[in-house]
Amino acid sequence: MPSRRASAARPRVSVLRIGHRPGRDPRITTHVALVARAFGAERMFLHPPDPGLAERVAAVARSWGGEFRVEGAESWKSVVKSADGLVVQLTMYGQPLPGVADRARRARSLLVVVGGAKVPAELFGLADLNVSVGNQPHSEVGALAVFLDRVLGFPRPGPWPGARQAIVPQRRGKRIRAVAQADRP
Amino acid sequence: MPSRRASAARPRVSVLRIGHRPGRDPRITTHVALVARAFGAERMFLHPPDPGLAERVAAVARSWGGEFRVEGAESWKSVVKSADGLVVQLTMYGQPLPGVADRARRARSLLVVVGGAKVPAELFGLADLNVSVGNQPHSEVGALAVFLDRVLGFPRPGPWPGARQAIVPQRRGKRIRAVAQADRP
Repeated sequence: MPSRRASAARPRVSVLRIGHRPGRDPRITTHVALVARAFGAERMFLHPPDPGLAERVAAVARSWGGEFRVEGAESWKSVVKSADGLVVQLTMYGQPLPGVADRARRARSLLVVVGGAKVPAELFGLADLNVSVGNQPHSEVGALAVFLDRVLGFPRPGPWPGARQAIVPQRRGKRIRAVAQADRP
Repeated sequence: MPSRRASAARPRVSVLRIGHRPGRDPRITTHVALVARAFGAERMFLHPPDPGLAERVAAVARSWGGEFRVEGAESWKSVVKSADGLVVQLTMYGQPLPGVADRARRARSLLVVVGGAKVPAELFGLADLNVSVGNQPHSEVGALAVFLDRVLGFPRPGPWPGARQAIVPQRRGKRIRAVAQADRP
Protein backbone atom coordinates (compact mmCIF):
# COMPACT_ATOMS: atom_id res chain seq x y z
CA MET A 1 0.00 0.00 0.00
CA PRO A 2 1.38 3.47 -0.77
CA SER A 3 3.06 4.95 2.27
CA ARG A 4 0.82 8.01 2.22
CA ARG A 5 -2.06 5.77 3.25
CA ALA A 6 -0.36 4.62 6.45
CA SER A 7 -0.99 7.68 8.60
CA ALA A 8 -4.52 8.73 7.63
CA ALA A 9 -7.80 6.87 7.76
CA ARG A 10 -8.64 6.73 4.10
CA PRO A 11 -11.06 4.38 2.43
CA ARG A 12 -9.70 1.23 0.87
CA VAL A 13 -10.39 1.54 -2.84
CA SER A 14 -11.07 -1.05 -5.51
CA VAL A 15 -11.84 -0.08 -9.08
CA LEU A 16 -14.14 -2.01 -11.41
CA ARG A 17 -13.50 -1.43 -15.09
CA ILE A 18 -16.33 -2.59 -17.35
CA GLY A 19 -16.65 -2.54 -21.11
CA HIS A 20 -13.06 -3.59 -21.77
CA ARG A 21 -12.57 -5.14 -25.21
CA PRO A 22 -9.77 -7.73 -25.14
CA GLY A 23 -7.97 -8.02 -28.46
CA ARG A 24 -8.65 -4.40 -29.35
CA ASP A 25 -6.25 -1.68 -28.34
CA PRO A 26 -5.84 -2.11 -24.59
CA ARG A 27 -4.32 1.27 -23.89
CA ILE A 28 -7.34 2.96 -22.37
CA THR A 29 -7.84 0.09 -19.93
CA THR A 30 -4.11 0.08 -19.18
CA HIS A 31 -4.30 3.80 -18.38
CA VAL A 32 -7.28 3.16 -16.09
CA ALA A 33 -5.30 0.48 -14.25
CA LEU A 34 -2.16 2.59 -13.89
CA VAL A 35 -4.14 5.59 -12.67
CA ALA A 36 -5.92 3.38 -10.14
CA ARG A 37 -2.56 2.12 -8.88
CA ALA A 38 -0.74 5.46 -8.90
CA PHE A 39 -3.52 7.19 -6.94
CA GLY A 40 -3.76 4.55 -4.25
CA ALA A 41 -6.37 1.94 -5.22
CA GLU A 42 -5.55 -1.60 -4.11
CA ARG A 43 -6.86 -3.48 -7.11
CA MET A 44 -8.84 -3.29 -10.30
CA PHE A 45 -11.49 -5.79 -11.27
CA LEU A 46 -11.60 -6.13 -15.03
CA HIS A 47 -14.64 -7.24 -16.99
CA PRO A 48 -14.20 -9.15 -19.18
CA PRO A 49 -10.92 -10.64 -17.90
CA ASP A 50 -7.70 -9.99 -19.85
CA PRO A 51 -4.79 -11.99 -18.39
CA GLY A 52 -2.24 -10.37 -20.73
CA LEU A 53 -3.15 -6.91 -19.51
CA ALA A 54 -3.15 -8.07 -15.88
CA GLU A 55 0.38 -9.41 -16.31
CA ARG A 56 1.66 -6.19 -17.90
CA VAL A 57 0.32 -4.19 -14.98
CA ALA A 58 1.81 -6.71 -12.53
CA ALA A 59 5.20 -6.11 -14.15
CA VAL A 60 4.86 -2.40 -13.39
CA ALA A 61 4.11 -3.21 -9.77
CA ARG A 62 7.14 -5.52 -9.53
CA SER A 63 9.42 -2.64 -10.56
CA TRP A 64 7.71 0.25 -8.80
CA GLY A 65 6.33 -1.48 -5.73
CA GLY A 66 2.99 -1.68 -3.98
CA GLU A 67 0.39 -4.40 -3.91
CA PHE A 68 -1.84 -3.32 -6.76
CA ARG A 69 -3.25 -6.11 -8.92
CA VAL A 70 -5.74 -6.62 -11.74
CA GLU A 71 -8.32 -9.36 -11.17
CA GLY A 72 -10.46 -10.71 -13.98
CA ALA A 73 -14.23 -10.58 -13.36
CA GLU A 74 -16.55 -12.85 -15.34
CA SER A 75 -19.57 -10.97 -13.98
CA TRP A 76 -19.45 -7.25 -13.25
CA LYS A 77 -22.72 -7.53 -11.39
CA SER A 78 -21.31 -10.05 -8.92
CA VAL A 79 -18.47 -7.66 -8.13
CA VAL A 80 -20.93 -4.82 -7.50
CA LYS A 81 -23.30 -6.94 -5.43
CA SER A 82 -20.56 -8.41 -3.26
CA ALA A 83 -18.92 -5.03 -2.54
CA ASP A 84 -18.73 -4.45 1.22
CA GLY A 85 -18.51 -0.67 1.02
CA LEU A 86 -19.86 2.26 -0.95
CA VAL A 87 -20.36 1.64 -4.67
CA VAL A 88 -19.60 4.75 -6.72
CA GLN A 89 -20.16 4.93 -10.45
CA LEU A 90 -18.28 7.67 -12.25
CA THR A 91 -20.54 9.05 -14.98
CA MET A 92 -20.97 12.41 -16.66
CA TYR A 93 -24.68 12.16 -15.81
CA GLY A 94 -24.23 11.95 -12.04
CA GLN A 95 -24.05 14.35 -9.11
CA PRO A 96 -21.00 16.66 -9.14
CA LEU A 97 -18.13 15.25 -7.10
CA PRO A 98 -17.61 18.25 -4.77
CA GLY A 99 -21.04 17.68 -3.21
CA VAL A 100 -20.44 14.01 -2.44
CA ALA A 101 -16.68 13.80 -1.91
CA ASP A 102 -17.03 13.94 1.89
CA ARG A 103 -19.34 10.97 1.88
CA ALA A 104 -16.85 9.02 -0.21
CA ARG A 105 -13.95 10.01 2.08
CA ARG A 106 -15.80 8.79 5.16
CA ALA A 107 -16.48 5.34 3.70
CA ARG A 108 -14.42 2.44 5.01
CA SER A 109 -14.14 1.04 1.52
CA LEU A 110 -15.10 2.13 -1.98
CA LEU A 111 -15.78 0.29 -5.19
CA VAL A 112 -15.34 2.83 -7.99
CA VAL A 113 -16.96 1.70 -11.24
CA VAL A 114 -15.78 3.14 -14.55
CA GLY A 115 -17.13 2.21 -17.95
CA GLY A 116 -16.62 3.36 -21.48
CA ALA A 117 -19.19 4.84 -23.83
CA LYS A 118 -21.77 2.12 -23.15
CA VAL A 119 -22.67 1.34 -19.55
CA PRO A 120 -25.48 -1.03 -18.53
CA ALA A 121 -28.49 1.05 -17.44
CA GLU A 122 -28.88 -1.28 -14.45
CA LEU A 123 -25.65 0.05 -12.97
CA PHE A 124 -27.22 3.44 -12.22
CA GLY A 125 -29.63 1.72 -9.85
CA LEU A 126 -27.07 -0.63 -8.28
CA ALA A 127 -24.56 2.11 -7.44
CA ASP A 128 -24.91 3.92 -4.12
CA LEU A 129 -23.65 7.11 -5.76
CA ASN A 130 -23.54 8.18 -9.39
CA VAL A 131 -20.86 10.84 -9.47
CA SER A 132 -19.80 13.23 -12.22
CA VAL A 133 -16.35 14.72 -12.65
CA GLY A 134 -17.66 17.49 -14.83
CA ASN A 135 -20.79 17.09 -16.94
CA GLN A 136 -19.07 17.23 -20.29
CA PRO A 137 -17.99 14.19 -22.29
CA HIS A 138 -14.37 13.38 -21.56
CA SER A 139 -12.55 10.34 -20.26
CA GLU A 140 -12.93 7.63 -17.66
CA VAL A 141 -9.16 7.86 -17.16
CA GLY A 142 -9.33 11.55 -16.31
CA ALA A 143 -12.45 11.15 -14.18
CA LEU A 144 -10.86 8.38 -12.10
CA ALA A 145 -7.67 10.39 -11.55
CA VAL A 146 -9.54 13.47 -10.31
CA PHE A 147 -11.88 11.38 -8.16
CA LEU A 148 -9.00 9.59 -6.42
CA ASP A 149 -6.97 12.80 -6.05
CA ARG A 150 -9.90 14.49 -4.33
CA VAL A 151 -10.89 11.51 -2.17
CA LEU A 152 -7.52 9.96 -1.23
CA GLY A 153 -5.26 12.99 -1.67
CA PHE A 154 -2.30 13.73 -3.89
CA PRO A 155 0.17 10.85 -4.19
CA ARG A 156 3.43 11.44 -2.35
CA PRO A 157 6.85 10.96 -3.88
CA GLY A 158 9.21 8.31 -2.54
CA PRO A 159 9.60 4.57 -3.06
CA TRP A 160 6.67 2.28 -2.52
CA PRO A 161 6.89 -0.91 -0.45
CA GLY A 162 8.81 -3.58 -2.34
CA ALA A 163 9.94 -1.20 -5.10
CA ARG A 164 13.12 -1.93 -7.04
CA GLN A 165 13.29 1.67 -8.25
CA ALA A 166 11.87 5.08 -7.51
CA ILE A 167 11.90 8.51 -9.10
CA VAL A 168 13.69 11.39 -7.42
CA PRO A 169 11.71 14.45 -8.56
CA GLN A 170 13.80 16.98 -10.52
CA ARG A 171 13.40 20.47 -11.92
CA ARG A 172 15.04 19.29 -15.15
CA GLY A 173 15.66 15.85 -16.56
CA LYS A 174 15.06 12.37 -15.21
CA ARG A 175 16.43 10.69 -12.13
CA ILE A 176 15.56 7.15 -11.14
CA ARG A 177 17.31 5.55 -8.22
CA ALA A 178 17.60 1.85 -7.51
CA VAL A 179 16.06 0.85 -4.19
CA ALA A 180 18.31 -1.58 -2.33
CA GLN A 181 16.60 -4.55 -0.72
CA ALA A 182 17.48 -3.27 2.76
CA ASP A 183 16.03 0.18 2.07
CA ARG A 184 12.71 -1.03 0.77
CA PRO A 185 10.01 0.38 2.97
CA MET B 1 -15.11 29.58 -22.81
CA PRO B 2 -16.76 27.68 -19.91
CA SER B 3 -18.86 29.98 -17.79
CA ARG B 4 -16.91 29.14 -14.65
CA ARG B 5 -13.99 31.07 -16.13
CA ALA B 6 -15.91 34.32 -16.39
CA SER B 7 -15.77 35.45 -12.78
CA ALA B 8 -12.23 34.52 -11.71
CA ALA B 9 -8.85 35.47 -13.09
CA ARG B 10 -7.59 32.13 -14.24
CA PRO B 11 -4.82 31.48 -16.71
CA ARG B 12 -5.74 30.87 -20.33
CA VAL B 13 -4.67 27.32 -21.07
CA SER B 14 -3.48 25.67 -24.26
CA VAL B 15 -2.40 22.03 -24.32
CA LEU B 16 0.30 20.62 -26.60
CA ARG B 17 0.04 16.90 -27.24
CA ILE B 18 3.19 15.37 -28.70
CA GLY B 19 3.93 11.81 -29.76
CA HIS B 20 0.53 11.20 -31.34
CA ARG B 21 0.55 8.39 -33.89
CA PRO B 22 -2.03 9.04 -36.64
CA GLY B 23 -3.38 5.85 -38.11
CA ARG B 24 -2.92 3.93 -34.89
CA ASP B 25 -5.65 3.84 -32.30
CA PRO B 26 -6.43 7.51 -31.64
CA ARG B 27 -8.29 6.98 -28.39
CA ILE B 28 -5.61 8.15 -25.98
CA THR B 29 -5.16 11.40 -27.90
CA THR B 30 -8.94 11.81 -28.10
CA HIS B 31 -9.14 11.40 -24.33
CA VAL B 32 -6.39 14.01 -23.89
CA ALA B 33 -8.34 16.45 -26.10
CA LEU B 34 -11.67 15.87 -24.36
CA VAL B 35 -10.09 16.25 -20.91
CA ALA B 36 -8.42 19.47 -22.05
CA ARG B 37 -11.79 20.78 -23.24
CA ALA B 38 -13.87 19.58 -20.27
CA PHE B 39 -11.47 21.11 -17.74
CA GLY B 40 -11.33 24.51 -19.40
CA ALA B 41 -8.42 24.62 -21.86
CA GLU B 42 -9.05 26.72 -24.97
CA ARG B 43 -7.28 24.57 -27.51
CA MET B 44 -4.97 21.65 -28.08
CA PHE B 45 -2.03 21.72 -30.44
CA LEU B 46 -1.47 18.27 -31.88
CA HIS B 47 1.86 17.01 -33.19
CA PRO B 48 1.82 15.49 -35.70
CA PRO B 49 -1.46 16.90 -37.10
CA ASP B 50 -4.48 14.59 -37.43
CA PRO B 51 -7.37 16.37 -39.20
CA GLY B 52 -9.77 13.46 -38.66
CA LEU B 53 -9.29 13.60 -34.92
CA ALA B 54 -9.59 17.39 -34.91
CA GLU B 55 -12.92 17.12 -36.72
CA ARG B 56 -14.28 14.50 -34.31
CA VAL B 57 -13.44 16.75 -31.36
CA ALA B 58 -14.97 19.74 -33.18
CA ALA B 59 -18.20 17.74 -33.50
CA VAL B 60 -18.27 17.32 -29.71
CA ALA B 61 -17.86 21.07 -29.30
CA ARG B 62 -20.70 21.77 -31.75
CA SER B 63 -23.07 19.71 -29.60
CA TRP B 64 -21.82 20.59 -26.16
CA GLY B 65 -20.65 24.16 -26.68
CA GLY B 66 -17.54 26.17 -25.98
CA GLU B 67 -14.73 27.30 -28.24
CA PHE B 68 -12.30 24.42 -27.83
CA ARG B 69 -10.43 23.38 -30.96
CA VAL B 70 -7.62 21.07 -32.01
CA GLU B 71 -4.89 22.67 -34.14
CA GLY B 72 -2.34 20.60 -36.03
CA ALA B 73 1.30 21.46 -35.31
CA GLU B 74 4.03 20.46 -37.77
CA SER B 75 6.71 21.42 -35.24
CA TRP B 76 6.22 20.93 -31.52
CA LYS B 77 9.27 23.05 -30.84
CA SER B 78 7.79 26.06 -32.64
CA VAL B 79 4.70 25.83 -30.46
CA VAL B 80 6.83 25.73 -27.31
CA LYS B 81 9.12 28.56 -28.40
CA SER B 82 6.27 30.84 -29.45
CA ALA B 83 4.29 30.35 -26.24
CA ASP B 84 3.64 33.71 -24.58
CA GLY B 85 3.13 32.34 -21.07
CA LEU B 86 4.45 29.66 -18.74
CA VAL B 87 5.39 26.36 -20.41
CA VAL B 88 4.62 23.39 -18.17
CA GLN B 89 5.59 19.85 -19.06
CA LEU B 90 3.70 17.13 -17.22
CA THR B 91 6.14 14.31 -16.49
CA MET B 92 6.46 11.70 -13.77
CA TYR B 93 10.08 12.90 -13.32
CA GLY B 94 9.21 16.49 -12.43
CA GLN B 95 8.50 18.49 -9.29
CA PRO B 96 5.31 17.49 -7.46
CA LEU B 97 2.35 19.63 -8.50
CA PRO B 98 1.32 20.86 -5.02
CA GLY B 99 4.59 22.79 -4.68
CA VAL B 100 4.22 24.63 -8.00
CA ALA B 101 0.44 24.89 -8.47
CA ASP B 102 0.34 28.47 -7.14
CA ARG B 103 2.88 29.59 -9.69
CA ALA B 104 0.81 28.01 -12.46
CA ARG B 105 -2.40 29.62 -11.14
CA ARG B 106 -0.82 33.08 -11.17
CA ALA B 107 0.30 32.82 -14.80
CA ARG B 108 -1.65 34.79 -17.38
CA SER B 109 -1.41 31.91 -19.80
CA LEU B 110 -0.16 28.35 -19.72
CA LEU B 111 1.03 25.92 -22.35
CA VAL B 112 0.70 22.45 -20.86
CA VAL B 113 2.76 19.86 -22.72
CA VAL B 114 1.85 16.17 -22.48
CA GLY B 115 3.64 13.34 -24.23
CA GLY B 116 3.44 9.60 -24.27
CA ALA B 117 6.14 7.13 -23.28
CA LYS B 118 8.84 8.82 -25.37
CA VAL B 119 9.40 12.54 -24.91
CA PRO B 120 12.27 14.49 -26.55
CA ALA B 121 14.96 15.12 -23.90
CA GLU B 122 15.20 18.71 -25.13
CA LEU B 123 11.73 19.43 -23.82
CA PHE B 124 12.90 19.20 -20.20
CA GLY B 125 15.17 22.19 -20.84
CA LEU B 126 12.66 24.20 -22.87
CA ALA B 127 9.85 23.94 -20.32
CA ASP B 128 9.66 26.55 -17.55
CA LEU B 129 8.33 23.91 -15.19
CA ASN B 130 8.54 20.12 -15.29
CA VAL B 131 5.67 18.98 -13.09
CA SER B 132 4.75 15.56 -11.78
CA VAL B 133 1.26 14.40 -10.90
CA GLY B 134 2.57 11.58 -8.78
CA ASN B 135 5.95 9.97 -9.46
CA GLN B 136 4.62 6.61 -10.53
CA PRO B 137 4.02 5.58 -14.13
CA HIS B 138 0.41 6.23 -15.06
CA SER B 139 -1.29 8.25 -17.77
CA GLU B 140 -0.99 11.59 -19.51
CA VAL B 141 -4.79 11.69 -19.57
CA GLY B 142 -5.02 11.35 -15.79
CA ALA B 143 -2.15 13.74 -15.18
CA LEU B 144 -3.72 16.45 -17.34
CA ALA B 145 -7.11 16.08 -15.64
CA VAL B 146 -5.65 16.45 -12.14
CA PHE B 147 -3.41 19.33 -13.19
CA LEU B 148 -6.31 21.29 -14.68
CA ASP B 149 -8.62 20.48 -11.78
CA ARG B 150 -6.05 21.81 -9.31
CA VAL B 151 -5.07 24.87 -11.37
CA LEU B 152 -8.38 25.97 -12.93
CA GLY B 153 -10.81 24.41 -10.46
CA PHE B 154 -13.56 21.85 -10.77
CA PRO B 155 -15.74 22.27 -13.87
CA ARG B 156 -19.22 23.56 -13.10
CA PRO B 157 -22.41 21.99 -14.41
CA GLY B 158 -24.67 23.90 -16.77
CA PRO B 159 -24.70 24.53 -20.52
CA TRP B 160 -21.64 25.99 -22.22
CA PRO B 161 -21.85 28.94 -24.63
CA GLY B 162 -23.34 27.83 -27.94
CA ALA B 163 -24.32 24.37 -26.64
CA ARG B 164 -27.19 22.49 -28.27
CA GLN B 165 -27.51 20.22 -25.25
CA ALA B 166 -26.46 19.96 -21.65
CA ILE B 167 -26.62 17.38 -18.89
CA VAL B 168 -28.81 17.90 -15.87
CA PRO B 169 -26.98 16.05 -13.08
CA GLN B 170 -29.03 13.23 -11.52
CA ARG B 171 -28.77 10.85 -8.59
CA ARG B 172 -29.90 8.03 -10.87
CA GLY B 173 -30.07 7.70 -14.61
CA LYS B 174 -29.37 10.12 -17.43
CA ARG B 175 -30.92 13.45 -18.25
CA ILE B 176 -29.89 15.56 -21.20
CA ARG B 177 -31.82 18.69 -22.02
CA ALA B 178 -31.88 20.50 -25.34
CA VAL B 179 -30.68 24.08 -25.09
CA ALA B 180 -32.92 26.41 -27.09
CA GLN B 181 -31.19 28.99 -29.21
CA ALA B 182 -32.55 31.80 -27.06
CA ASP B 183 -31.32 30.22 -23.83
CA ARG B 184 -27.78 29.65 -25.01
CA PRO B 185 -25.42 31.51 -22.73
